[in-house]
Amino acid sequence: MTTIGIVIFDDVEELDFVGPWEVFGAARAMIEKAEAPGVAPWRVHLLAETGGPIRCAKGMRVLPDATLAESSALDVVLVPGGMGTRREANNQGLLAWLREVAPRCTFVTSVCTGALLLHEAGISRGRRVATHFNFVEPLRARGANVAENVRYVQDGNLISAAGVSAGIDMSLWLVGQLVDPRFARKVQRWIEYDPKPPYADVAI
Amino acid sequence: MTTIGIVIFDDVEELDFVGPWEVFGAARAMIEKAEAPGVAPWRVHLLAETGGPIRCAKGMRVLPDATLAESSALDVVLVPGGMGTRREANNQGLLAWLREVAPRCTFVTSVCTGALLLHEAGISRGRRVATHFNFVEPLRARGANVAENVRYVQDGNLISAAGVSAGIDMSLWLVGQLVDPRFARKVQRWIEYDPKPPYADVAI
Repeated sequence: MTTIGIVIFDDVEELDFVGPWEVFGAARAMIEKAEAPGVAPWRVHLLAETGGPIRCAKGMRVLPDATLAESSALDVVLVPGGMGTRREANNQGLLAWLREVAPRCTFVTSVCTGALLLHEAGISRGRRVATHFNFVEPLRARGANVAENVRYVQDGNLISAAGVSAGIDMSLWLVGQLVDPRFARKVQRWIEYDPKPPYADVAI
Repeated sequence: MTTIGIVIFDDVEELDFVGPWEVFGAARAMIEKAEAPGVAPWRVHLLAETGGPIRCAKGMRVLPDATLAESSALDVVLVPGGMGTRREANNQGLLAWLREVAPRCTFVTSVCTGALLLHEAGISRGRRVATHFNFVEPLRARGANVAENVRYVQDGNLISAAGVSAGIDMSLWLVGQLVDPRFARKVQRWIEYDPKPPYADVAI
């Protein structure tokens, strides 16, 4: 069993965690259907401090699957971003939980300003991280080693993505590491992730 | 006020609706911050038949903002896909609601297999639509005019996207139509939608 825990909190940015949730969830479903022969089952769940609804940054309300305390051992932990990270950066309970969980994970990951929480927990200190482009300087001001103009960064088992939608690319990359690149391409195909942002050729 | 209603139902695919939700929600927030001078406020909400939690296709539980009956007049209606569409295609209450709402919308939109519901409601009959690549033939078998190998299709005020992640591209395009392309690029920048799917150069 490979267990992936995605941490959510009030004012978490919706796509920061639902992009990875979709990628990992599609991988889990395809493994269940034996599309990755020999690969052990995956479990993907949303974890929060309490069991009640989380109100996300853009107003969506989501129910967590389990509390942090109930969480079983994780192979991957993912910390999304959003305005709520500014508050959670001072949440000693959450930071202590991250410090306890991270050393036992195969991969410790963040999306967007989730990198702030890994930094404040002391997990990413000295290691190279990515974050939202608007948060590069604020995170550097706290002493972090922040890469710019990258989609996601690997530093050992620490993988951090740039802002919001970059979590999709990072999660597909992780599927390739946890299973293999061929399977990651199948997941990419299933979610039809052949992106074509509009207005690319419009002079504005 | 521009009001966008996103319809959700059990077994709706998570990224089908959260991708557009993020794009429209970021646009709404930027309009609130006067980043699109002169543009009237936006409202974006999740609509469901009842007020209780919706269990999505990959297991995420989301609370709707209002019921279909409570919904105010919509400028844009968005119908996402997911396995639940096979059941909802026979939900006469939902289909009747779509038939009532669609003629008053500036844009009627779908993502992925959401096109099935617009088809069964009779809204897209004869008009060109996109859907998930796995659903092209089943939708054609029902008599629909389905485009292939496209990210999204416009046929008058009917805009339909291909599978899952294609809703992000379609929603950014819609922001450009509802406001202007320059603003759509600002929203794209804010969600850092400069996608780089991994393993693109790996021979597998």
